Amino acid sequence: MRLSRYFLPVLKETPSEAQIVSHRYMLRAGMIKQAQAGIYSWLPLGFKVLRKIEDIIHQEQARAGHIPLLMPTLQSADLWRESGRYDAYGEEMLRITDRHGRDMLYTPTAEELITDIFRSNVSSYKDLPLTLYQIQWKFRDEIRPRFGVMRGREFLMKDGYNFDLTREDALHAYNRHLVSYLRSYERMGLQAIPMRADSGPIGGEDTHEFLVLADTGESEVFYDSQITDLKFGDRAIDFDSVEQCQAVMEEFTSRYARTDETHVQAEFETQVPQDRRRTARGIEVGQIFYFGTKYSDALNATVNDGQGKDVAVHMGSHGIGVSRLLGAIIEASHDDKGIIWPEGVTPFHCGIVNLKQGDAEADAACDSLHAALVALGLDPLYDDRKERAGAKFATMDLIGLPWRITVGPRGLKNGVVELTSRRTGESEELPPEAAVAKIAALYGAIAA
Amino acid sequence: MRLSRYFLPVLKETPSEAQIVSHRYMLRAGMIKQAQAGIYSWLPLGFKVLRKIEDIIHQEQARAGHIPLLMPTLQSADLWRESGRYDAYGEEMLRITDRHGRDMLYTPTAEELITDIFRSNVSSYKDLPLTLYQIQWKFRDEIRPRFGVMRGREFLMKDGYNFDLTREDALHAYNRHLVSYLRSYERMGLQAIPMRADSGPIGGEDTHEFLVLADTGESEVFYDSQITDLKFGDRAIDFDSVEQCQAVMEEFTSRYARTDETHVQAEFETQVPQDRRRTARGIEVGQIFYFGTKYSDALNATVNDGQGKDVAVHMGSHGIGVSRLLGAIIEASHDDKGIIWPEGVTPFHCGIVNLKQGDAEADAACDSLHAALVALGLDPLYDDRKERAGAKFATMDLIGLPWRITVGPRGLKNGVVELTSRRTGESEELPPEAAVAKIAALYGAIAA
Repeated sequence: MRLSRYFLPVLKETPSEAQIVSHRYMLRAGMIKQAQAGIYSWLPLGFKVLRKIEDIIHQEQARAGHIPLLMPTLQSADLWRESGRYDAYGEEMLRITDRHGRDMLYTPTAEELITDIFRSNVSSYKDLPLTLYQIQWKFRDEIRPRFGVMRGREFLMKDGYNFDLTREDALHAYNRHLVSYLRSYERMGLQAIPMRADSGPIGGEDTHEFLVLADTGESEVFYDSQITDLKFGDRAIDFDSVEQCQAVMEEFTSRYARTDETHVQAEFETQVPQDRRRTARGIEVGQIFYFGTKYSDALNATVNDGQGKDVAVHMGSHGIGVSRLLGAIIEASHDDKGIIWPEGVTPFHCGIVNLKQGDAEADAACDSLHAALVALGLDPLYDDRKERAGAKFATMDLIGLPWRITVGPRGLKNGVVELTSRRTGESEELPPEAAVAKIAALYGAIAA
Repeated sequence: MRLSRYFLPVLKETPSEAQIVSHRYMLRAGMIKQAQAGIYSWLPLGFKVLRKIEDIIHQEQARAGHIPLLMPTLQSADLWRESGRYDAYGEEMLRITDRHGRDMLYTPTAEELITDIFRSNVSSYKDLPLTLYQIQWKFRDEIRPRFGVMRGREFLMKDGYNFDLTREDALHAYNRHLVSYLRSYERMGLQAIPMRADSGPIGGEDTHEFLVLADTGESEVFYDSQITDLKFGDRAIDFDSVEQCQAVMEEFTSRYARTDETHVQAEFETQVPQDRRRTARGIEVGQIFYFGTKYSDALNATVNDGQGKDVAVHMGSHGIGVSRLLGAIIEASHDDKGIIWPEGVTPFHCGIVNLKQGDAEADAACDSLHAALVALGLDPLYDDRKERAGAKFATMDLIGLPWRITVGPRGLKNGVVELTSRRTGESEELPPEAAVAKIAALYGAIAA
């Protein structure tokens, strides 16, 4: 993409309403624009990252054997009355009346509707296990929306729901989600730590939140420092194997890690040696729940158990805060010049900076670099504006592409361009073809 | 995908509320489920087709040089008051009040918000031309929603907006959209005819609707039969070339083709020889508008014209009815057994039917066919249920996958499987590897 043909409205000034770094950088980098309090337009650069995150989630959910569908944003109040949550939910639920006077709501979560889909179509244990999920816009009428997309009112969420015959099967589904979430977050360049959590308005017995450590996190967290050494990595896993998923769950949740909601100081001190006790702030980026038959009882979602009895299905629900993840990634990965995107979610794979736009040789070299990268399936952003080098560098640093190729007449005389890492700041000079090959290898390795 | 692990709730009975064939088949094939009047959940099979249509649109918009973003579903009433449409829009606009008593609405279209994004960020002619678009859920509170997704209340739409310095540039953007839409619809297996249309509540001077001919169409259409011979095909086009885009526009719109809203019988009879005059019904699947400075005047969206003057930008808006396209495609492509998906949008590339589930040889042959297709990047649906052959064939015919591979012990003794075209019903026997190669070649040819 040529920057001259793109829409990247970078701001020089820091908007005064932004209190945290991710909000500041998302506004300055032209990723979002507030439409009204807590509601944002996703400008092209922000939209690209949002789609990358969605793609990772879809791929990892497919790997775990979960099936995507899409439920509407508006729902009838009737189902919520059936579950008892219509009155219980409070003012965060946006209630709407249509032209015929019927009560509707903008869905904050979808336990009721997915259970209705299930009970209308499934009646036998033979159709289980089943996990359905969606990535869809939700609404929560926060009284004081703030921190940009981190605490917005209209937000994008992945929400998945498992239906199982027994508690054991449902706990396997719980573990499957834990594993798939660990994989997803790592692919986004994040370390998200599962912490024992409180179930809140969803209800349930077992629940873990996934937290990314960051100074601006909304929760205080307490954990054993050994946890931050754990990596899921590229280990192979059979999602059908109860034992394998259980082993991962135990590995990642057996050490003490809790938010302030569930923290017990005495247990912390008993379970964790003093030199490994850590206190920090964390951003919640996901949560998994097992809640048994809470919704299947309320909504009468039963299956024949193969022995002549109809039994309520065991369920859980599992969420990833998709739009807030952009904020969390930036909080975890930036410096004073701007964002530093992890390779897995970067909006463009690399930038190309032409130091002397209009110089025939420099222009031709940039065109050919751009074409070579595109031919390999990569997506570069070529800054072809007639701007000073300093302004081009500042834009590239702000928008945070992990790699930059700098092209200028002096280097070209020696047959080289400069390849710079946004994260380390380190540069090397190398022939244009070698720069292309290096970037291709780097992203090839990530895709594999 | 193995059907035993998928969620495909096929119905045996035709739901009584469905009046048209696409609605009947979408319900029976387990593609959608009504959540409330005019609001649907997209079950896995329906969601897959929806995503395929979105992908085609994104690819063709990128080819035309248009930039994707995403605006929120809920908007503040303020901008709509500024344009004067808040009061003018009538009861189809879903009006919402938040917990602080602020007026919002579920957006039926986004001229106001995109113009606000533009005016906040662009001030120079140097940043033009610019076309931004999104694919996002909209809401229109239809008094009598009907015909399934064809006339729903919550619906998915692609809406694009061009910003240009002059009327001539904006007309080029209009033509670019016409060309990209022709390409998009053809890739979906549809012939959509541009017809001169009425501008309705968007306003504007120039507008064409795209109509798919089908008996159940909501509009009566009048056209010169030569039009149905036109194909865009795989011709190369330079979207930057004013002449090339203009030539396509003239080729596809110079013959008489109008809906009942703009039809003039006397002109029809003068312009079209009697033997080429056709009257039919059509389904509207898209519309393009040029409306000049209507919104830029109202919302004060101006740019410096390079000669010291601030001028209002020339705009147009361009829409594709994404969710209704599923209905339109089915109306145009089905028989009495079910849907017949065009290859470009089929939810699975082919079906595999195992005639004797549990037979070791048949099971192994199906597993190996499935693996071979997946290894080539194809997405087959393998019916591995313990069902009669007749029931498996009926399901495959209903859900409309264009190709079916049938595997049974008798054929395997002779080293062959059966490959059947859903469209023609023709079958041939061939070795499993040859069946895989044939399907791969077929979809390879489409992807190229």
